[in-house]
Amino acid sequence: MKFCSDCGARVSFRVPPGDRLPRHVCDACGAIHYQNPRMVVGSLPVWGERILLCRRAIEPRLGFWTLPSGFMENGETTAQAAVRETLEEANARVELGPMYTLYNVPHVDQVHIVYRATLLDLDFSPGEESLDVALFDPADIPWNDIAFRSIRHTLDRYVADRDGGSFGFHTGDIVLPGHN
Amino acid sequence: MKFCSDCGARVSFRVPPGDRLPRHVCDACGAIHYQNPRMVVGSLPVWGERILLCRRAIEPRLGFWTLPSGFMENGETTAQAAVRETLEEANARVELGPMYTLYNVPHVDQVHIVYRATLLDLDFSPGEESLDVALFDPADIPWNDIAFRSIRHTLDRYVADRDGGSFGFHTGDIVLPGHN
Repeated sequence: MKFCSDCGARVSFRVPPGDRLPRHVCDACGAIHYQNPRMVVGSLPVWGERILLCRRAIEPRLGFWTLPSGFMENGETTAQAAVRETLEEANARVELGPMYTLYNVPHVDQVHIVYRATLLDLDFSPGEESLDVALFDPADIPWNDIAFRSIRHTLDRYVADRDGGSFGFHTGDIVLPGHN
Repeated sequence: MKFCSDCGARVSFRVPPGDRLPRHVCDACGAIHYQNPRMVVGSLPVWGERILLCRRAIEPRLGFWTLPSGFMENGETTAQAAVRETLEEANARVELGPMYTLYNVPHVDQVHIVYRATLLDLDFSPGEESLDVALFDPADIPWNDIAFRSIRHTLDRYVADRDGGSFGFHTGDIVLPGHN
């Protein structure tokens, strides 16, 4: 951020009075521009034993498999975001279950949330941001080609919980070496 | 948002190619400025049977009681945000328990998260944004003077779960009449 989005003047990056972190501050109009983590929300859609995955058509991680998910929008709930992203990325209609995992990804200022979901029909297909959409038996999940660690952990948890016969809610942190 | 934070030119509000929602778009440099929900994270600190509440020294809801919480910062996890906010608002040190509630508040583009927590000592005091900090027996919670509905629901849940002897993880939506 270089310019004030309210008045167009140049901003400086400094600690405002009474604050403890540097912010983008406009010396012309006084606006303080906060930046906060964004939420990426999706679903883990199943049909019987099989799990729906999407192969990414866009960067980052083009060509890798993931669960349908994307940035939550203003004005919607986490559940609405999960249903919308599942429809957009996989043209798939789901009945949403409970929130299943929440992973912090602080090195990219994100929080990833995944809901359990049941496909309502098999009439799915790749959305604009997917190259392919397919159902995978747990034994056939392409573990080495999963796009994001939060999604790999979620799938891993799901397979373990399914084998154990009980699903909970799981939280965790994805921490890169060299980051706190 | 009126001006581009990258180049300072005026932005327009329109649907970018390939998108489905209007965004603030810079016609000069091409930047698209997304706006997404923000997360408000806090804790429910207990000492034996009693619950710590803070009386707000700032708007909105100045003078009303709430759990220590605030906007999550870039670079931190939800748990780190909960511990930090508890320290800032109540000068209170806690051992954090599991994530306890997540409420969507779509009419203000927020998601509110509260962790269960145990106070490590009784050496708490009002932080800069609090008028008062106090411990309440469940029977004495000032229900009519709680600042936010997500916090009232969280406290309500906590008292019920405590009486029931089992705490889960709870999600919900705070929906205003006239909003979807």
